Amino acid sequence: MFNLGNFLTLSTFGESHGAAYGGIITNFPAGLEINLEKVQQQLDRRRPGQSAIVTQRKESDAVKLLSGIFEGKTTGTPIGFTIENENQKSKDYDHIAQAARPSHADFTYEQKFGIRDYRGGGKSSARETVNWVVAGSMARQLLPENVEISSYVSSVGEIFCEKPYQNLDFSKIDSNEVRCPDEETAERMIAKIKEIKKEGNTIGGTITCVIKNLPIGIGEPVFGKLQAELAKSMLNINACKGFEYGSGFCGAKMTGKEHNDLFNADFTTKTNLSGGIQGGISNGMDVYFRVAFKPVATILRPQESFDQDGNPIIIEGKGRHDACVLPRAVPIVENLAAFVLADLFLINKLRKFYV
Amino acid sequence: MFNLGNFLTLSTFGESHGAAYGGIITNFPAGLEINLEKVQQQLDRRRPGQSAIVTQRKESDAVKLLSGIFEGKTTGTPIGFTIENENQKSKDYDHIAQAARPSHADFTYEQKFGIRDYRGGGKSSARETVNWVVAGSMARQLLPENVEISSYVSSVGEIFCEKPYQNLDFSKIDSNEVRCPDEETAERMIAKIKEIKKEGNTIGGTITCVIKNLPIGIGEPVFGKLQAELAKSMLNINACKGFEYGSGFCGAKMTGKEHNDLFNADFTTKTNLSGGIQGGISNGMDVYFRVAFKPVATILRPQESFDQDGNPIIIEGKGRHDACVLPRAVPIVENLAAFVLADLFLINKLRKFYV
Amino acid sequence: MFNLGNFLTLSTFGESHGAAYGGIITNFPAGLEINLEKVQQQLDRRRPGQSAIVTQRKESDAVKLLSGIFEGKTTGTPIGFTIENENQKSKDYDHIAQAARPSHADFTYEQKFGIRDYRGGGKSSARETVNWVVAGSMARQLLPENVEISSYVSSVGEIFCEKPYQNLDFSKIDSNEVRCPDEETAERMIAKIKEIKKEGNTIGGTITCVIKNLPIGIGEPVFGKLQAELAKSMLNINACKGFEYGSGFCGAKMTGKEHNDLFNADFTTKTNLSGGIQGGISNGMDVYFRVAFKPVATILRPQESFDQDGNPIIIEGKGRHDACVLPRAVPIVENLAAFVLADLFLINKLRKFYV
Amino acid sequence: MFNLGNFLTLSTFGESHGAAYGGIITNFPAGLEINLEKVQQQLDRRRPGQSAIVTQRKESDAVKLLSGIFEGKTTGTPIGFTIENENQKSKDYDHIAQAARPSHADFTYEQKFGIRDYRGGGKSSARETVNWVVAGSMARQLLPENVEISSYVSSVGEIFCEKPYQNLDFSKIDSNEVRCPDEETAERMIAKIKEIKKEGNTIGGTITCVIKNLPIGIGEPVFGKLQAELAKSMLNINACKGFEYGSGFCGAKMTGKEHNDLFNADFTTKTNLSGGIQGGISNGMDVYFRVAFKPVATILRPQESFDQDGNPIIIEGKGRHDACVLPRAVPIVENLAAFVLADLFLINKLRKFYV
Repeated sequence: MFNLGNFLTLSTFGESHGAAYGGIITNFPAGLEINLEKVQQQLDRRRPGQSAIVTQRKESDAVKLLSGIFEGKTTGTPIGFTIENENQKSKDYDHIAQAARPSHADFTYEQKFGIRDYRGGGKSSARETVNWVVAGSMARQLLPENVEISSYVSSVGEIFCEKPYQNLDFSKIDSNEVRCPDEETAERMIAKIKEIKKEGNTIGGTITCVIKNLPIGIGEPVFGKLQAELAKSMLNINACKGFEYGSGFCGAKMTGKEHNDLFNADFTTKTNLSGGIQGGISNGMDVYFRVAFKPVATILRPQESFDQDGNPIIIEGKGRHDACVLPRAVPIVENLAAFVLADLFLINKLRKFYV
Repeated sequence: MFNLGNFLTLSTFGESHGAAYGGIITNFPAGLEINLEKVQQQLDRRRPGQSAIVTQRKESDAVKLLSGIFEGKTTGTPIGFTIENENQKSKDYDHIAQAARPSHADFTYEQKFGIRDYRGGGKSSARETVNWVVAGSMARQLLPENVEISSYVSSVGEIFCEKPYQNLDFSKIDSNEVRCPDEETAERMIAKIKEIKKEGNTIGGTITCVIKNLPIGIGEPVFGKLQAELAKSMLNINACKGFEYGSGFCGAKMTGKEHNDLFNADFTTKTNLSGGIQGGISNGMDVYFRVAFKPVATILRPQESFDQDGNPIIIEGKGRHDACVLPRAVPIVENLAAFVLADLFLINKLRKFYV
Repeated sequence: MFNLGNFLTLSTFGESHGAAYGGIITNFPAGLEINLEKVQQQLDRRRPGQSAIVTQRKESDAVKLLSGIFEGKTTGTPIGFTIENENQKSKDYDHIAQAARPSHADFTYEQKFGIRDYRGGGKSSARETVNWVVAGSMARQLLPENVEISSYVSSVGEIFCEKPYQNLDFSKIDSNEVRCPDEETAERMIAKIKEIKKEGNTIGGTITCVIKNLPIGIGEPVFGKLQAELAKSMLNINACKGFEYGSGFCGAKMTGKEHNDLFNADFTTKTNLSGGIQGGISNGMDVYFRVAFKPVATILRPQESFDQDGNPIIIEGKGRHDACVLPRAVPIVENLAAFVLADLFLINKLRKFYV
Repeated sequence: MFNLGNFLTLSTFGESHGAAYGGIITNFPAGLEINLEKVQQQLDRRRPGQSAIVTQRKESDAVKLLSGIFEGKTTGTPIGFTIENENQKSKDYDHIAQAARPSHADFTYEQKFGIRDYRGGGKSSARETVNWVVAGSMARQLLPENVEISSYVSSVGEIFCEKPYQNLDFSKIDSNEVRCPDEETAERMIAKIKEIKKEGNTIGGTITCVIKNLPIGIGEPVFGKLQAELAKSMLNINACKGFEYGSGFCGAKMTGKEHNDLFNADFTTKTNLSGGIQGGISNGMDVYFRVAFKPVATILRPQESFDQDGNPIIIEGKGRHDACVLPRAVPIVENLAAFVLADLFLINKLRKFYV
């Protein structure tokens, strides 16, 4: 309950100012040689301090494997891992121990659990996503090698990458700090984030994810539709406010005549408003979806709030925070998607009798 | 696996042209007097043939309770139910037995399972949602009485209900065929659907759902966030293409200063861009979300496609289909949401020790 | 939660005097031609009224398939089924509506759920096992054809079948009413049951189950050991009091030198005190286990008890009850085991990467 | 899947010669002050090297808490923990890298996963139970304080503790090395184990567990019966060969007249052959069960076996092994039972509507 995945599962633990994050991956098939460099690579893409436009906190985010891998290969038994918290400046948070920060989860956690872990949000911290990147980047290695999962920042505030994904060169995603493969747009996004940061403000945006060469048949008919499993995982990302796939909200404005994807003789489709999914099951075309992120709630400007006794106070973020989480969220989206796909990919192997 | 709910669960079965649909609800608490009229009322709102703008198929959609309720009250043991299929005109589908219908799941099902159930889509039919309305309308009765879940058609094609939900009178939702509480907009929507229907075409739209008086504390910190559970359930609806809550995709364009919801002294918030959820947990404000529906894929116009041997054919929908599913999807959204909320509501009762 | 199986799952519903029993089997692979005669055959072995030594209640126990099978083959989607209750003589139970029957679940159900379904035990009735026989006899068809699951009555009261299972001819199990393949023992068992029945009394016994030709590798290392999954399913049978496999409780008296099963050069073992399982995983030798059943609690003799107000009353079973459930429990044990094996067999297909 | 518990769950990882064991406990209610000394106490009862009659391996078995507890209290979020492996003498195992040890899981693991972790059994090692003791001894603190769970060694080989549990003083369980509260029997058991150890042999036995003051209502009607959940957990212990509760296998020899437990006016029962459970649900009487353990497979004597090429070899256990696991298994049984009870106890809180 409350894990990621259905058959291949990830359970996690960790709080922003506890000793460590970590997780257990179960039902990972045996005999796969895990490329740990690829795992660290994805962690590094998510890591704080990697560029001038993200938070300057320092975390090495090195994953420590405790079980399930022997002589470089998976053993088929649970993979346990931890990532230590190195940089727990609890002092940065002393001033907010008694305050409810606007648009943070301090208040809801306290109400739900009757307890307040004021150290940087405790369990509500997005540092939890470090676990997902570890698990996702391993699960990704279960998928056929030609499956390509790419995600990129498609908007920051009002600045949109106008080109359709087909016209973008995904090899350029990591060539700039903001992770938008269109250089001209990337520059404008970076300038915007720097401006916003200077103001002590933050800004939202969207990430687009494209999956190429996914085998046909991935996803389950009811309560396990591919899009539903993707949506569920994305909406669990801390700042995520929305998910759409294929034509998405635009499709809701269209007619059936416009929206239907006609077949070619080989059962590829002429258009792909369906986003590569029919009836919850991949159809061999590109699967693509878009995720909305709200602006980070911690702003380095004074905001009015109240302490626990209801007295008005002024609260002002300190510490090192992201002005825009989008660049660091790119590997989160990508590796979460990978985990979801690997889980459904394994399950799909059992769908035909004795095949 | 692949059920609705985490603790309170719904398993379902049924195909469009099989003998019956049905399901099992487990872990429903004992001793609740179930109002079966309310269940039938929701089924009637979803039923085909209820108005001129929806499909004219006839189904009485009467639920048959087989267990779990004794002398009007739940017994705490599994609730089994069936809804018979009365109107299985398989003949309507003979012409498509060998064809892949554009933007239907014929092709993906056949590839996934190696089997073709050509009778109206078999398991991929949206008639499955009849099960969800039964279960959701029962689960809804578990929630505190003052919790109000209202959903309405907020757009049809390019016609939007421009008023914010706060300015709408939800008691008028069922006062017109399209289920938009703003009468003037409703009239335009109905006219549009009639026009589209005359053309043998179909049209998409959006549904907005608003939950008032939800207790604080509903939803789980990680992999069980309230928004993620809602998104997952909505994206499992057959035609759903997207989900957003609170500020949604608009929020992705904003800055933190604009987007943060400042507190009042009683810890309600001055604004509610958060959509009533912080850190995945309800905060006592209105929870609201919006769901995108694509236009129905079955259009009563000739479309080019291919038979199983790859020969070009012309396919043309026959039978009685919806030109716009939105009015009938309103109770689906509403009761699915109710089920998700009831499940998380029960779980939340175990979150504080001995309380 | 509270289903049978982990990947291949069975959810059930039904009460002894409700309208019907039934269940949903999920994740059954597509494309298997289900032999429904074999299903009915197993139901007939469990059916009341089949011989002179079991209850004379009449139930046809015909299974009605509602989904998941099309043109004789599984479709890969949930299999829904019901078995109607035909013979609900609620009147037989009127006299016990207010009494707590000794060693029945009336009292515990009432305390747990705050509700009393007095009609023959309601949910606590062993009629629930009819669902398991349906599901198990289908799941059995998923296993390789050479897997043989045989169970037989190995003791009734103090009468034991002394021969080791290797010396028994399993084809004779159904040749007598008590389902003990050793004819001489069977006769003594039958005589004993008739004597006990005449006294209005009941008697316990044991069932031994032997699985031959099970592939190597079935069962999971931790919290999914083959023996644990079998034990769990058996202990869910209403009258079951114990489970042992291989050397069982006798093995607890032995030394390692005596108990270890030495290997042959082909890695079969010279002895099989392990019961075909090492580390929770089948090793290719026969898997065998033994299940203890208490005597039926309903006796047709006066017993002292108390009504709900604590007043002393005399209670005396009426109606048509089993003096010994063992013969009818044989197909329950066998088909439950089949379900457990089929579930673990499917899961095992995902244990090696890309194999 | 393949966790311990249904709502309160434990996922685990770890191999005998990996870096660490560990686990994640989910859905632990917030606000409980965890007594860590009690946890360590139970770990110490399980620890190797604690007395002359158990293995002399040295492990401090100190649990490291990584999350879920803040300022001494549970936060309601996942509890992550590790126990490091300090004493990994892989050299002791070099000689068996290529051999299949009789009655060990080397062969089945290799066949199942296609991989051989020869370091002391890898995942099949009983060191996994250290995780269960941590989780069980925490879960135990969730139960009402008056619930007493006691287990003791009731037989070693042919030496049985003949007194019924009611005549034993459970406060004496830990007063001797073998953990049998009857001193005279304990002495004979200890002498027997020393004799067996001197021979390089091992010996089996049984453990009896008694739960007093368990609230009425614990356990679920179908596929969640209290006895089934207990049996499942016990049969997952590495050397366990059988489980019986209440009258157990003896009850299978009895008649209904003898076996039925008549009520007193307060609905306690005059006898307790039922073992405190009716219909899978606790009835307020003592719950008691017995678990069979086979003798340890590693004996320090030469045994014939075969290497991976099928060549005959002589294998002889080295290293520090238990001649009898029973004394160390006592806390395993006890704390596993505690976890199972705590899980069902929490679930039972949701069984009555709004209570």
